[in-house]
Amino acid sequence: MIGRLNHVAIAVPDLEAAAATYRDTLGAKVSAPQPEPDHGVTVIFVDLGNTKIELLHPLGENSPIANYLKNNPSGGMHHVCYEVDDIIAARDQLKGEGARVLGDGEPKIGAHGNPVLFLHPKDFCGTLVELEQVA
Amino acid sequence: MIGRLNHVAIAVPDLEAAAATYRDTLGAKVSAPQPEPDHGVTVIFVDLGNTKIELLHPLGENSPIANYLKNNPSGGMHHVCYEVDDIIAARDQLKGEGARVLGDGEPKIGAHGNPVLFLHPKDFCGTLVELEQVA
Repeated sequence: MIGRLNHVAIAVPDLEAAAATYRDTLGAKVSAPQPEPDHGVTVIFVDLGNTKIELLHPLGENSPIANYLKNNPSGGMHHVCYEVDDIIAARDQLKGEGARVLGDGEPKIGAHGNPVLFLHPKDFCGTLVELEQVA
Repeated sequence: MIGRLNHVAIAVPDLEAAAATYRDTLGAKVSAPQPEPDHGVTVIFVDLGNTKIELLHPLGENSPIANYLKNNPSGGMHHVCYEVDDIIAARDQLKGEGARVLGDGEPKIGAHGNPVLFLHPKDFCGTLVELEQVA
């Protein structure tokens, strides 16, 4: 069912410092900050060739990563995102196997303009998993 | 400096259950368990096409992931591994920029037979970073 690793998301307390770490210290190709008000985050993409890192920083009230940063003030790995061909089929199959889909179970449009869902970390080795439908 | 994402390592409390989650629930291609006594872990590789997940379980005394699992009993993302062309050049450049290299600073031979080093999470957005020299 799952295909490629679309990205690894790292929540960071200081977006400019994190961008400098990846750009200047690690010598990676780093995008400009991209505000995603609908998702409560500002994102910087780190291009690794085969996949990407997404550096996430809270934007506005009720950011989905605010609590994570409260518990992990230095930042840290927040989730992994796996690509799927058909997110509805993937969701229904996972639910049939007892896996918990977060929220109301309906895909939202993610930061890349594609439908996404999140799966409960307790069902996936303590790891928050995002599924993204990539055409 | 850094190239591709070689893998994301996920520490798991039950290796067979984790393999079943990735193989049966998520439908991914999963290897047989590979004991790595020199590294204190048993590893299962999950092939995602563009990169891989490494499911890590403690092996023997003093496993480097035992403490992590004590603090995270459900498991979780343990580190990311970035590929470099020349690990000594990468290490010296990073040290010159003030980044902390773990252990004695000398590369060890990692689970794939290549030289590896680990970098201090506090210097890299709260994320434990492995560098692996890939020819």
